[in-house]
Amino acid sequence: MAKQRVLLLGATGNTGESILNGLLEHGAYEVQILVRPSSAEKPAVKKIAERGVKVVIADINGPIEELVSIQKGIDVTVSAIDAQSQLSQMNLATAAKKAGVKRFVPCAWTSVAPPEGVMILRDHKEQVYNHIKRLYLPYTVIDVGFWHQVSFPTSLPSRRFDYAAMAPSNEVHGDGERPNIIGDLRDLGRWTARIIADERTLNKYVFTCSDVLSENQIYSIVEELTGEKLERNQISYEEIEAKVKEAKINGEKEPDNVMNRVMRFKADYDYSKYLRGDNQPEYAKYLGYLDARELYPDFRPITFREFVKDLLEGKIVKPHYDFL
Amino acid sequence: MAKQRVLLLGATGNTGESILNGLLEHGAYEVQILVRPSSAEKPAVKKIAERGVKVVIADINGPIEELVSIQKGIDVTVSAIDAQSQLSQMNLATAAKKAGVKRFVPCAWTSVAPPEGVMILRDHKEQVYNHIKRLYLPYTVIDVGFWHQVSFPTSLPSRRFDYAAMAPSNEVHGDGERPNIIGDLRDLGRWTARIIADERTLNKYVFTCSDVLSENQIYSIVEELTGEKLERNQISYEEIEAKVKEAKINGEKEPDNVMNRVMRFKADYDYSKYLRGDNQPEYAKYLGYLDARELYPDFRPITFREFVKDLLEGKIVKPHYDFL
Repeated sequence: MAKQRVLLLGATGNTGESILNGLLEHGAYEVQILVRPSSAEKPAVKKIAERGVKVVIADINGPIEELVSIQKGIDVTVSAIDAQSQLSQMNLATAAKKAGVKRFVPCAWTSVAPPEGVMILRDHKEQVYNHIKRLYLPYTVIDVGFWHQVSFPTSLPSRRFDYAAMAPSNEVHGDGERPNIIGDLRDLGRWTARIIADERTLNKYVFTCSDVLSENQIYSIVEELTGEKLERNQISYEEIEAKVKEAKINGEKEPDNVMNRVMRFKADYDYSKYLRGDNQPEYAKYLGYLDARELYPDFRPITFREFVKDLLEGKIVKPHYDFL
Repeated sequence: MAKQRVLLLGATGNTGESILNGLLEHGAYEVQILVRPSSAEKPAVKKIAERGVKVVIADINGPIEELVSIQKGIDVTVSAIDAQSQLSQMNLATAAKKAGVKRFVPCAWTSVAPPEGVMILRDHKEQVYNHIKRLYLPYTVIDVGFWHQVSFPTSLPSRRFDYAAMAPSNEVHGDGERPNIIGDLRDLGRWTARIIADERTLNKYVFTCSDVLSENQIYSIVEELTGEKLERNQISYEEIEAKVKEAKINGEKEPDNVMNRVMRFKADYDYSKYLRGDNQPEYAKYLGYLDARELYPDFRPITFREFVKDLLEGKIVKPHYDFL
């Protein structure tokens, strides 16, 4: 069988990097990466090119015709665009329809949440999904819960996990009992390689998952495997709600301030994951998601325990600062 | 087995009437109707009460506690509220969640269309669906295409169909070839009685259907069965688009003018059904709908041909003017 031709947008980000690795490792894909003109000379792009991946230069905010022409002959377009630029995917989707792309994978890659009114990031994604549905463009939405790489506490007396952490973390929200879908960033691309070759996932939402764990369970696993006692900073439900309120007010005052947006994303995540408890398999299924664990029973994801062992062995790479 | 307790909102409208008849005929339901205080003394309500149906008086814009209390012990709440009041369903849904209602059937009952940006009526419904999803309230969305009762031409030289028509109709849009899902208003409740007893339809969208016919096919069937030649008023795609534009401008100028809203609904329907071609089984399935014909292969819907025969025999009742 001929290899499926995939065009990947955002290949130098954390998500895109995992997708690229997963698709190349899988072997059934011929991957091209889409890069904006200003990034063409970046070392990260050059490195990918050296792996034999074709680099396509185009501005996704440029003319539609160019976006059509680069997607001609493409089977699957996969978008892992940065969180701030979700709406820029609209033209790419319009062009994908015109080019006859067989499956469009918009930028989801996040926790399970309702389509509207809970997380501003999800609201933006929903606008893209609705645009895709208006176009009658074949699609798959893939959500991955929360990464192990941003779900572990760093508050060990030894500080030996600091090397892999994007930010220090010692928070436990509410009673710490809300379970959440998590998964390893390194698995994200391996799941994707399975999902986009599967007819069952066409025009569907899918979630991937390694474990469903509460914060209390996460802290226990880390204490057990490190033999250290973790400091815990208790955040009440009232504080979660106050943070959302504050982030909304600041966002309205200065809508273009990137830090305000990042604070809003963080506040929304805490509200959705720990107060509402959205990011769980049962709710995902209620919302219409397929469970990747059921679709691919042979897939062995990296568990949180395995991740912590890797952390202890110094094997975890800190994600770049593009994740919000 | 104990009868399922259903609370029906909008029972005196065309859709609600069909639902009430379908549920009572089915036999497995104990139906209560929800009526606003100002309608309690209406003859149509009295007539329903005379059939042994319990009448519950409450204001759906009133206090939530009252809406909780009337839904305690209810298995299924079915809403067939008028088109202008879609957003008033929000509190009823909030209360349904608190009361432990096992299935909420919001007011859908229309043609298949994308969730956002094509029909303003669908946009309003989507806000209600999104509210339901935020609540994690079990639901079923039931769409029925377009009724036979508003899909037949009246432009016969004999004028013998005028008695059953809400408005004269002689339009053919574009090339007249766009197929549309249609169904008989009298079947709407019979379908509903099947769908709301079915675990497979929980948290799903379902469409019902008797025929999928283009306007040209509809005109041919009527000409064949009447032996008369129909007058046809050709409406171009450009005219459809111009009507939508005009209706949007008028709606923005006078948002509270009911006639403007009705004109907008009509323009949107024509745009969606005849220009975009949304109201078709394939697109419905793409959007995630289940096909009621596949779920209930033994269900024999009234076909459009049978409807036209009934029309000829004077058996069709003209719908009331609540349908938009």
